[in-house]
Amino acid sequence: MKTILILGAGKSATYLIDYLADSCVEKERTLILADLDQSTAATKLKNRANTLAASIDIENGDSRKGLIVQADLVISMLPAFMHPVVAKDCLELGKHFFTASYESDALREMAQEIEAKQLFFLNECGLDPGIDHMSGMKIIHEAKAKGEEIISFKSYCGGLLSPQSEDNPWKYKFTWNPRNVILAGQATSRFIEKGELKYVPYHQLFKRIETVKFPGLGDFDGYPNRDSLSYRKVYGLEDISTMLRGTLRRAGFCKGWDVFVQLGLTDDSFQLELHEGSTYRQFLNAFLPWSETLSVEEKLAELIPDLDFPTFEKLQWLGFFENRKLPLLKGSPAQILQAILEKDWALQPEDKDMIVMQHQFEIKTERGIKKLTSSLVDLGKDAAYTAMAKTVGLPLAIAVDLFLEGKIKGTGLHLPVLPEIYLPILAELERQGIRFVEQEWY
Amino acid sequence: MKTILILGAGKSATYLIDYLADSCVEKERTLILADLDQSTAATKLKNRANTLAASIDIENGDSRKGLIVQADLVISMLPAFMHPVVAKDCLELGKHFFTASYESDALREMAQEIEAKQLFFLNECGLDPGIDHMSGMKIIHEAKAKGEEIISFKSYCGGLLSPQSEDNPWKYKFTWNPRNVILAGQATSRFIEKGELKYVPYHQLFKRIETVKFPGLGDFDGYPNRDSLSYRKVYGLEDISTMLRGTLRRAGFCKGWDVFVQLGLTDDSFQLELHEGSTYRQFLNAFLPWSETLSVEEKLAELIPDLDFPTFEKLQWLGFFENRKLPLLKGSPAQILQAILEKDWALQPEDKDMIVMQHQFEIKTERGIKKLTSSLVDLGKDAAYTAMAKTVGLPLAIAVDLFLEGKIKGTGLHLPVLPEIYLPILAELERQGIRFVEQEWY
Repeated sequence: MKTILILGAGKSATYLIDYLADSCVEKERTLILADLDQSTAATKLKNRANTLAASIDIENGDSRKGLIVQADLVISMLPAFMHPVVAKDCLELGKHFFTASYESDALREMAQEIEAKQLFFLNECGLDPGIDHMSGMKIIHEAKAKGEEIISFKSYCGGLLSPQSEDNPWKYKFTWNPRNVILAGQATSRFIEKGELKYVPYHQLFKRIETVKFPGLGDFDGYPNRDSLSYRKVYGLEDISTMLRGTLRRAGFCKGWDVFVQLGLTDDSFQLELHEGSTYRQFLNAFLPWSETLSVEEKLAELIPDLDFPTFEKLQWLGFFENRKLPLLKGSPAQILQAILEKDWALQPEDKDMIVMQHQFEIKTERGIKKLTSSLVDLGKDAAYTAMAKTVGLPLAIAVDLFLEGKIKGTGLHLPVLPEIYLPILAELERQGIRFVEQEWY
Repeated sequence: MKTILILGAGKSATYLIDYLADSCVEKERTLILADLDQSTAATKLKNRANTLAASIDIENGDSRKGLIVQADLVISMLPAFMHPVVAKDCLELGKHFFTASYESDALREMAQEIEAKQLFFLNECGLDPGIDHMSGMKIIHEAKAKGEEIISFKSYCGGLLSPQSEDNPWKYKFTWNPRNVILAGQATSRFIEKGELKYVPYHQLFKRIETVKFPGLGDFDGYPNRDSLSYRKVYGLEDISTMLRGTLRRAGFCKGWDVFVQLGLTDDSFQLELHEGSTYRQFLNAFLPWSETLSVEEKLAELIPDLDFPTFEKLQWLGFFENRKLPLLKGSPAQILQAILEKDWALQPEDKDMIVMQHQFEIKTERGIKKLTSSLVDLGKDAAYTAMAKTVGLPLAIAVDLFLEGKIKGTGLHLPVLPEIYLPILAELERQGIRFVEQEWY
């Protein structure tokens, strides 16, 4: 009887827990679910047979190891900084290790020892990173097998709202860590286009967007992620002439967000000193020039020359032109902006989220240049069973299941970029309703 | 017989060394000048009586303390990170300590002990910080003595070229640490204007300029420095409604520099990977969008909508539109930009530099609001005897001289903001030809 340990019972673990907990009886496994709050874990396990809720103090080594030693395999759903710590514990105690997070340098340093101990460590097996790797590599490997050459690969992903829940002018609410959304893109983005290396600084990022279309869903803004260049190596496409990875927002979002960027409202590098009773309007005005005669609205229009009505409306809807009191006075501009947005962009219980992902390939074939798009759309059920939790959690759950079944074999440190890993996972994801729609033309 | 130790015989120490070396015989002092390179020190001392050149390994405690123990008073002209280290040595060995650099938190932590040991530590006694504090405080104290209220204080300073050496379209060459010039302003600037706190992010900084005029010299661009707010306390002007400190460049410079900022060429946060043989034009193009049809020049004009001919000419003069090979391929964008500019903005032996400083006050008086500007212009002699070295070094030399003469008394950690410190220094600076011209009107 194998024992699985999941560390962290948060929002994004819902589907992961259900999938593995449901398998326990049939597949003769035990699942231990550990959380800072044991009752959260218990609630999510719903008293299923062979499952056990535990409490954990993640920063306490004895607390962690006392649980890890009981398991054959550990899944970390903890904050990213904890992964190397848990991985180290697993290495010491001889346990397999799975996450949906980025493979860090700290993990890479353990690679040899993981291999030496015949353990299997799999990272980046969630949505993005995760499903993007698997579905992209499948197309790349298939093309290469036919002797074709990938000359362009652009890949976009976004965690958004299901169309029926797009009830504000931004068509956006937080379905993921708000702080990460506020600080997204705060580093020069790097990609390659038609053989030219391209570098886009933060204050140009939300202007340098491409329109990405999904059949039946309309238009999205795609802006480039921080580092697309390193993926050339990950995907074995060292000589590709176009490689770009990007994030999707609803069309128009980026133009609105760019106002915050241009003004400096997303700056997290210093603390503001705002007077007691400061308002949204004063907060905005602190980032505009002083003027004897111009209003806040007029100064904004002067500073943002292409300010159009849809953009103005987005700011107005958030209350930026009103003398409404700020929810936070002490903090960085980014922290105050986050406090504002958390009030208005909170996901309501009836809201449904949506995951969209699209790969855009150009492939040199015998018939000429083939264009291929592969698109995934997944809609959430409600604010608990979100598309985000499903697409992050299921790949990881499936990977663990297949590994315990012996259907994924191997040792060492891995990303899901090998066919023997991604093919069975993609097949099961399809059975679970997570499937890509492909279009191709010449 | 008192012994002065100067640590560092670099470019900005020339006047400091001359002033103090010249005083040695008459005032019965010994001057030890220590530098990493003893021969540099010897050359600058010109065999004057009672002077001694020494070599120092600044990061070696024994080397430092072996010299410091011989002195009564230490002047640090070392890189800023070394000041707290030398100050600690001085505290331990019971020596007085003088610099032209900013008072750091590390120094502030020593304040009590400095006082307890009856030592005198003076920081920020150069140009900016230094002359700005002294000349500004004199006006502030005089106004307060008359019962007047300072309602606005803007203060600008720039290290530039003497007009006859302005032989390039930027009207700029490096008269100071090039890296600091490249990275200048890379933090949100904070000031207060007519009672409104204002925050200007880096990518708006070189657009939010004011024109500053000097009689007979024409127009300059003034952009706000990083933190003007903290000076309210330093100057005892906690309730002032306008406080801004800024940097001066020749009119038009900021619009040209802003192109680099907008494109991301001043970014120091990541390393570029440029191909062997990359050119200036390719470097520029890496920060512009890809286009099938537009040239580099056309793409630039599209990205910078207000690109005018004087700005275009500045970039053209540097060679950015040419297929000239880059002087550096590995480094951050800022490092590569610096390598380019160091070739074209190098001060030539015949070049003369210029220091400009202007205080702009609004003072509530019995007669109404008085406007007062106080302006300093100092021209360098040549590339060795620069206005920068003079205005940085003389205030410090004079402070040391007056302290040893007993004309400045006191103990503890100080900035030159007390009349008993700044009045005798300003009087001697005037005798040395460093004098402010005041204009006032109602």
